[in-house]
Amino acid sequence: MHVTVINPNTTASMTRAIGEAARAAAAAGTTIVATNPDSGPASIEGYYDEVFSIPGLIAEMKKARGTDAFVIACFDDTGLDGARSLADVPVIGIGEAAMHMATLVATRFSVITTLKVSVPALEHNVRKYGFDARCGRVRACEVPVLALEDPASGARAKISSEIVRAKDEDGAEAIVLGCAGMAELAASLTREHGLPVIDGVASAVKLAEAMIGLGLKTSKVGGYAPPRAKAYAGTFAWAAP
Amino acid sequence: MHVTVINPNTTASMTRAIGEAARAAAAAGTTIVATNPDSGPASIEGYYDEVFSIPGLIAEMKKARGTDAFVIACFDDTGLDGARSLADVPVIGIGEAAMHMATLVATRFSVITTLKVSVPALEHNVRKYGFDARCGRVRACEVPVLALEDPASGARAKISSEIVRAKDEDGAEAIVLGCAGMAELAASLTREHGLPVIDGVASAVKLAEAMIGLGLKTSKVGGYAPPRAKAYAGTFAWAAP
Amino acid sequence: MHVTVINPNTTASMTRAIGEAARAAAAAGTTIVATNPDSGPASIEGYYDEVFSIPGLIAEMKKARGTDAFVIACFDDTGLDGARSLADVPVIGIGEAAMHMATLVATRFSVITTLKVSVPALEHNVRKYGFDARCGRVRACEVPVLALEDPASGARAKISSEIVRAKDEDGAEAIVLGCAGMAELAASLTREHGLPVIDGVASAVKLAEAMIGLGLKTSKVGGYAPPRAKAYAGTFAWAAP
Amino acid sequence: MHVTVINPNTTASMTRAIGEAARAAAAAGTTIVATNPDSGPASIEGYYDEVFSIPGLIAEMKKARGTDAFVIACFDDTGLDGARSLADVPVIGIGEAAMHMATLVATRFSVITTLKVSVPALEHNVRKYGFDARCGRVRACEVPVLALEDPASGARAKISSEIVRAKDEDGAEAIVLGCAGMAELAASLTREHGLPVIDGVASAVKLAEAMIGLGLKTSKVGGYAPPRAKAYAGTFAWAAP
Amino acid sequence: MHVTVINPNTTASMTRAIGEAARAAAAAGTTIVATNPDSGPASIEGYYDEVFSIPGLIAEMKKARGTDAFVIACFDDTGLDGARSLADVPVIGIGEAAMHMATLVATRFSVITTLKVSVPALEHNVRKYGFDARCGRVRACEVPVLALEDPASGARAKISSEIVRAKDEDGAEAIVLGCAGMAELAASLTREHGLPVIDGVASAVKLAEAMIGLGLKTSKVGGYAPPRAKAYAGTFAWAAP
Amino acid sequence: MHVTVINPNTTASMTRAIGEAARAAAAAGTTIVATNPDSGPASIEGYYDEVFSIPGLIAEMKKARGTDAFVIACFDDTGLDGARSLADVPVIGIGEAAMHMATLVATRFSVITTLKVSVPALEHNVRKYGFDARCGRVRACEVPVLALEDPASGARAKISSEIVRAKDEDGAEAIVLGCAGMAELAASLTREHGLPVIDGVASAVKLAEAMIGLGLKTSKVGGYAPPRAKAYAGTFAWAAP
Repeated sequence: MHVTVINPNTTASMTRAIGEAARAAAAAGTTIVATNPDSGPASIEGYYDEVFSIPGLIAEMKKARGTDAFVIACFDDTGLDGARSLADVPVIGIGEAAMHMATLVATRFSVITTLKVSVPALEHNVRKYGFDARCGRVRACEVPVLALEDPASGARAKISSEIVRAKDEDGAEAIVLGCAGMAELAASLTREHGLPVIDGVASAVKLAEAMIGLGLKTSKVGGYAPPRAKAYAGTFAWAAP
Repeated sequence: MHVTVINPNTTASMTRAIGEAARAAAAAGTTIVATNPDSGPASIEGYYDEVFSIPGLIAEMKKARGTDAFVIACFDDTGLDGARSLADVPVIGIGEAAMHMATLVATRFSVITTLKVSVPALEHNVRKYGFDARCGRVRACEVPVLALEDPASGARAKISSEIVRAKDEDGAEAIVLGCAGMAELAASLTREHGLPVIDGVASAVKLAEAMIGLGLKTSKVGGYAPPRAKAYAGTFAWAAP
Repeated sequence: MHVTVINPNTTASMTRAIGEAARAAAAAGTTIVATNPDSGPASIEGYYDEVFSIPGLIAEMKKARGTDAFVIACFDDTGLDGARSLADVPVIGIGEAAMHMATLVATRFSVITTLKVSVPALEHNVRKYGFDARCGRVRACEVPVLALEDPASGARAKISSEIVRAKDEDGAEAIVLGCAGMAELAASLTREHGLPVIDGVASAVKLAEAMIGLGLKTSKVGGYAPPRAKAYAGTFAWAAP
Repeated sequence: MHVTVINPNTTASMTRAIGEAARAAAAAGTTIVATNPDSGPASIEGYYDEVFSIPGLIAEMKKARGTDAFVIACFDDTGLDGARSLADVPVIGIGEAAMHMATLVATRFSVITTLKVSVPALEHNVRKYGFDARCGRVRACEVPVLALEDPASGARAKISSEIVRAKDEDGAEAIVLGCAGMAELAASLTREHGLPVIDGVASAVKLAEAMIGLGLKTSKVGGYAPPRAKAYAGTFAWAAP
Repeated sequence: MHVTVINPNTTASMTRAIGEAARAAAAAGTTIVATNPDSGPASIEGYYDEVFSIPGLIAEMKKARGTDAFVIACFDDTGLDGARSLADVPVIGIGEAAMHMATLVATRFSVITTLKVSVPALEHNVRKYGFDARCGRVRACEVPVLALEDPASGARAKISSEIVRAKDEDGAEAIVLGCAGMAELAASLTREHGLPVIDGVASAVKLAEAMIGLGLKTSKVGGYAPPRAKAYAGTFAWAAP
Repeated sequence: MHVTVINPNTTASMTRAIGEAARAAAAAGTTIVATNPDSGPASIEGYYDEVFSIPGLIAEMKKARGTDAFVIACFDDTGLDGARSLADVPVIGIGEAAMHMATLVATRFSVITTLKVSVPALEHNVRKYGFDARCGRVRACEVPVLALEDPASGARAKISSEIVRAKDEDGAEAIVLGCAGMAELAASLTREHGLPVIDGVASAVKLAEAMIGLGLKTSKVGGYAPPRAKAYAGTFAWAAP
């Protein structure tokens, strides 16, 4: 199986870390290619950054024809619907992947993401996926995406504090880590707090393998129908269906 | 007042028609500038086309600094959240504008859009705006966006048939026209069917005037906070906050 | 344009203040008439007071035939559905007006009203309008309606404290002022707190102008159909359709 | 036990029929007083009629002090919240009573009311009570309230036809009769269609007895707190709390 | 009338207490038989215990043929849907009974149950019954079911503390006691806290009497249709329909 | 990996077919053990049958200690919450598995199950899982569970007809097969109808493998906490925690 994991921001070091997390989760026969766009923001923090990461995500998808599934490795599930319209192989966002997994092991989960600016977009996704009655709260640890890897940010301690609050205040039975950059913390936080702490990168890779194994394809009879042939002007001429 | 109406597709004739509809609705002291991106799809029909219309929409917004409000003249409300993050003046989508207006004159409305492929995206917006208990159904007349102006498409008759069905089957008390290209039909369909048939372009212009008059600005303390300063790579370097 | 603003309580000084707020918001060509019923409660605080303000509201509407729109200037949107059944010109409640405006500039708002007794009625309206996923909380500052204008009530400081809590605890990005008597505080609280603080009187006047400009009428084919002709007994004989 | 059943319209013959239906349902030790206002509409069909039936309803409640419970015998549950604010004994609407009963014997019910104009108000109540996932549809048989008793109206046959459609199209397992004037049909329609056909008058009387037996009172600590003392002007001076 | 109250756990002393509470609530002509299964858990605290209490509950129902209604006296409404499929007389759970009653006297209620492990199951029931917008919160006092009667457990004081929090934090206007073993506390807590504190055992008995009086039967045309005839293997052969 | 697939009914031939479907879906290194209870109904059609299949399901789980995950192979997800309380390895119902998969490849799906009596239970699960806005309709083909394998039942043709209706009437973009006995039809119906037709047995096996691969365990801090130690009386003494 070939799974293409696309980090929709343009920070190559983050792509490498995501690739490692994906490979760590992948089954023996699964090949992971981790990539990111040439153009767009260095990190995705809020609605504006999303706008400029999606065309590059699509460009990466077009290059990757031949893959068996795509994973979008930003917790906002950036560009998920557009990507599904393009592909007929499965496309899975790491946000939805982690939340689906959480509902299978807990009656209620909370999300811990990076910055407050992303909370409304994630709350919106929670409702879109149908999990509003299952999600206690979307919390922010107030560490920017690219600072997560910097030990000086205190990221792990801040996330750990939010987990304690999520258990106490939200009745959370599981925690969903709300950024691809938090992937490596899942295992140790699970042990520390005694409840499932779920990473979306690994979750999405395993879901992708599951869907490939099932032979499941994205439906092409409704909202994800192939884009209609038409002219695309200017710098996006390359993207014309 | 200066209102910038952005048609997010690249079809200039449609932009002109939208500009006319906007000017017809505008108050005496309101200046309308209608524009469209240089790059992107000729029409927006489904999730994929949305992806490539939003960067150009943002580019048009950046050129237009000095305007008092923006109207996004595609019924999908393409790029609305990203646009609100950029601007502090009001940004109004024609889809939301028409739906808000419908809820002020009717207990239940139905939407009539162009193609079936757009229905899921519009149903999603209906839920996002909170109008799922007020919307009877999102219907498609199966006329493509750019064929609306072609008399041979039979667009008016097909829309009119859907209005009859919406009254009978959905209990619709008002109709929302689900494409900027249907603007000129609102008045005559209202007369013909004896219920409010609402166009989003005019609705959004009037809402924009109302919000300007109120001095209302987009909130900058949460999800629409200004994008954080960061590097934007490649062809999107121009968009860096 | 002629807009009739009806304060459904019987306190003339409040009607005058509402009229001033309405005129301050109105466009150059808009005539505002502010009025209140002869009969009914001096203020509306809870469900019981609503009962006895609505017949007088309808009586004022009947006197006002010739107006282009009605505004109901109580935040409970007292009698809104009944009023819409009577009129074919637009009828707008200040509660709904402010909430619609809030959803156009913020992903989440909180309401700050007068007394706790009104909170359930307002929460009910929030759900009725579809904004329950967008409203953080309906808060009470515990100042009675008619004490709002009395400096000794400390109203402004109490409302200001609730705004701080709404930002911190509810994630509110905008504030809706939950009483017509708070109209004059909107501008200064907006400046003080750095987020939109929205008054319903001004919002409703601008929405009324927008709807008049659009030629929008209340739908008469469903729940707002004209009342059927029938006998009305006793003191309400005058109201018979 | 003393239960006061108030028909909020002013048609005495309908009050008598309601009184008979109530007495037929009442337990041995229950005294039923059926009454109606002096002032207001001859029947309640839509939002406008509701306005002018509620003050008279309250007036009847004030006369009736000493009763152990009130039943509001219009399927719109006209004035229910205001009435609960006045009384501390239980107040039960026949609409809510029938719907509560339906959810105890069926996973899904449909409502059959008189006229289409009342459907939105009833759908609104269904949502307010929380039964939107349990209610298949609110249907209208298009027989006016006061024509129900006229054999020439064909009311029974029309209701019976709607029951067949409700079973087939809505998956209804129980039927709620949506007008006090349909009370006498419940038993025979139950037998004919082989599913529970539920009348609100009888349901409300039995719920009233149940609540009296439990010593349950309306809560006075929130939205149903007693109205605050204040001046009531003009013809409603009598209603001042 | 004959009402069979089944305590689905196997603790006979609790069955006796429930029987007393039921008889205290019952009308003069109502005979209460309180019973419990021979097999199953000594108390029901969470989903696992539910599994093994339901077959015994059904067995008790089969023995009781001839009764006019069944009450399931565990606040989880253990086995309610299965029980309704078996019987055509009404079957009422004490959880739903108390919640229905609460919505008739308050705009918002909170539940106070025994242990945290039961909260998700009760929250699920709240949503299933449609009361999620009416329920402030499901709270646990952290006293196990069988310790409720032990004065050393401090149960009454702990419940009383939660009532104070429910009023302050949840805006609760009424309290629902979330365990059959709390029945005897309802009256004194009502007096102490000045709001309705509702016990499910009494509520269910009164609802049962109401439904019997109405001649209401469980619908047999949908989800509660009689089980289809088929072989039941092994120790459950006795249960074959 | 070891996955134990439990058919909760007692029909061994159906267990064998389920085991084959599970093995066909399983990865190379996955061992499938398919089993069924000794006691209980020959098929599960409605709420009553569920009651008597769950204790046997738990008994099978207890025998299977050592497995890495459990699959409950009845589309009602019979006993899922109780099973999760017992185990710390993942427990997956085939109904939830298929629905989760459907939401990853389609904006809307419909379910096609066996008999009308099961529809309310499945609709309830749809809401419980949060998929009510994503599920067009739960349809019944009116073929009993054990007749599915009998060619004379015409099952395939009846299901195929419902798929056509689901596309036309519900806007379904994917189909979920609502019975374990339909597993073998998924592939050919997918080809025939040109949209994803999803089987729960295969879906659950792949989800189980994914969760095992992730090291995900059922949360033990809330509703799925281990059952508390207590006496279990009578025939269920064996089940005492």
